[in-house]
Amino acid sequence: MMAKSTVRGPYVGVDLGGTNIVAGLVDAEGRVLSRSKKKTGTDTAPDALVKRIVMTVQEILAEARIGAGDLAAIGVGAPGPVDPGRGMVLKAPNLGWSAVPLADLLSAQLKVPAFVDNDVNVGTWAEHVLGAGQGVQDMMGVFVGTGIGAGLVLDGRLYHGHFRTAGEIGHTWIHADAPRGRRTLENVASRTAIGFQLHQLALASNQTVLTRFADEGDLRSIRSKALAKALEAGDELTRTVVQQAATYVGVAIANQVTVLSLPCVVLGGGLPEALGRTFVEWVRKAFAAAVFPPELSKCRIVAAKLGDDAGMVGAALIARDRLAAGI
Amino acid sequence: MMAKSTVRGPYVGVDLGGTNIVAGLVDAEGRVLSRSKKKTGTDTAPDALVKRIVMTVQEILAEARIGAGDLAAIGVGAPGPVDPGRGMVLKAPNLGWSAVPLADLLSAQLKVPAFVDNDVNVGTWAEHVLGAGQGVQDMMGVFVGTGIGAGLVLDGRLYHGHFRTAGEIGHTWIHADAPRGRRTLENVASRTAIGFQLHQLALASNQTVLTRFADEGDLRSIRSKALAKALEAGDELTRTVVQQAATYVGVAIANQVTVLSLPCVVLGGGLPEALGRTFVEWVRKAFAAAVFPPELSKCRIVAAKLGDDAGMVGAALIARDRLAAGI
Repeated sequence: MMAKSTVRGPYVGVDLGGTNIVAGLVDAEGRVLSRSKKKTGTDTAPDALVKRIVMTVQEILAEARIGAGDLAAIGVGAPGPVDPGRGMVLKAPNLGWSAVPLADLLSAQLKVPAFVDNDVNVGTWAEHVLGAGQGVQDMMGVFVGTGIGAGLVLDGRLYHGHFRTAGEIGHTWIHADAPRGRRTLENVASRTAIGFQLHQLALASNQTVLTRFADEGDLRSIRSKALAKALEAGDELTRTVVQQAATYVGVAIANQVTVLSLPCVVLGGGLPEALGRTFVEWVRKAFAAAVFPPELSKCRIVAAKLGDDAGMVGAALIARDRLAAGI
Repeated sequence: MMAKSTVRGPYVGVDLGGTNIVAGLVDAEGRVLSRSKKKTGTDTAPDALVKRIVMTVQEILAEARIGAGDLAAIGVGAPGPVDPGRGMVLKAPNLGWSAVPLADLLSAQLKVPAFVDNDVNVGTWAEHVLGAGQGVQDMMGVFVGTGIGAGLVLDGRLYHGHFRTAGEIGHTWIHADAPRGRRTLENVASRTAIGFQLHQLALASNQTVLTRFADEGDLRSIRSKALAKALEAGDELTRTVVQQAATYVGVAIANQVTVLSLPCVVLGGGLPEALGRTFVEWVRKAFAAAVFPPELSKCRIVAAKLGDDAGMVGAALIARDRLAAGI
């Protein structure tokens, strides 16, 4: 919800990933006015990377013919746990970061207020404010890709938890008695896990058309879009493995909804986006069978709406809403 | 934490269970001044049961030589989901209740403000305010007995969730591929589940001293205290089964702490209370192995302090704190 004291903007939102920096100029309603994308590069030392972020922002400003002084604020989604109050990235393994005061570093260079949060939280916030999770005070965003992460909105606010690490649903155990490496949701339902299983099953079978769609035939690094093509082509092996993964995602979501009594879960990330309604339906079915009490099956499991933009737009919305709230 | 505007009291706290009604006169610091216990009885129709609660309260008042008008408020912990704002028991299967406006019924008869919450929430609140969960803003109380339930304190307040059913940790799945009846935490780790497993294993074994401690030798209804005795006597079969159950409790707790990033979990209920430190240690060990990221093993898993009184005292504290907050 937009606070009354929202500054008109515009804002810059930055999605800081291990591979790319995606930044966009975003207005106060969350519309993307322009965007820019750079490789994150190999020099991820805080100073070097802050310089690259600043460069990306300045390119956007130049293109829009405005100055940094015209921005209301800048927001960043970072790949790791963040202390949002201090604008501090506590840890970002992909970047080799530990305790980096990113908000301070950026606002010192750009002379605008800067706000930082975790990338999954930022995507969840975007879905809450503008996407599939509008109109509820409590929701969970679950993003399934090479990993599986979640963000929580409770009582209308992002929930970070005492250690600021909240949302690691991919690391919850759904097979407590399985051998190490097959216990957690991520172990059995991430795109990585799906690729690995397909690789092993395909070795033992001639009955898959899937290898046709994989890069260089290595199923372990298969892309979500290739999985979608194989499903469309009616490949049974792919259907079995992907449906099983979706089932596990549904069980893990049910475990959290059973404890948190949530009315809405938004499902995003590369896998649900490529596979569309089929994947969401499989998740829903498993969810409804596992959640307790049964009336919690009223909780809506819906596909994310904002796609790849969620991170960048969410970062801008975080900046907008924290600026307005004065936190 | 005691709000500044706390009324001096005294308060009456009522633990309304399927078997017993336990009520106590409690002062503003949570000290029990006197108590009374009645069978819940077989006529659990709302009117009849409200009458029994009122009788119990009046006995306490008579004994203390005060009138209902001297009470600041009355609080009740009820066995099912509650809408605390309306003081409404949404459902209590043990009592056959559905949508009973318990707070209104009680305050109409006793002419004092009445507040109602779920029994597990009320016990969690007592541990948060006066027990093992003092001094943290976020915590979970987990109670292991014939069933397994949890209460959540987030940001210093009891969390109920959109459907008011939050905390059903016993119904989370930790064996997603197991047959029906062996998937949830309660299926494999409640006292009921432990008794059932011991019964089956003992049938196939002569190597247990356990039957000596069970009522009429039926292990399926074995009490927590009998399990404690068998453990003390060094019974291997009991140790194996109970340790396995504690391990599953640790995994299910880790699943929630991994998502909620909590600093403290309080472990109560009949089983941890009878088995003491051993049980808590087993839970801790499994928790530390399962929680993610690893620094979350700093989350303290501690034994509850208030024992059987938690429900009654917690109900009084709920009344105290809601009265003070004007909600």
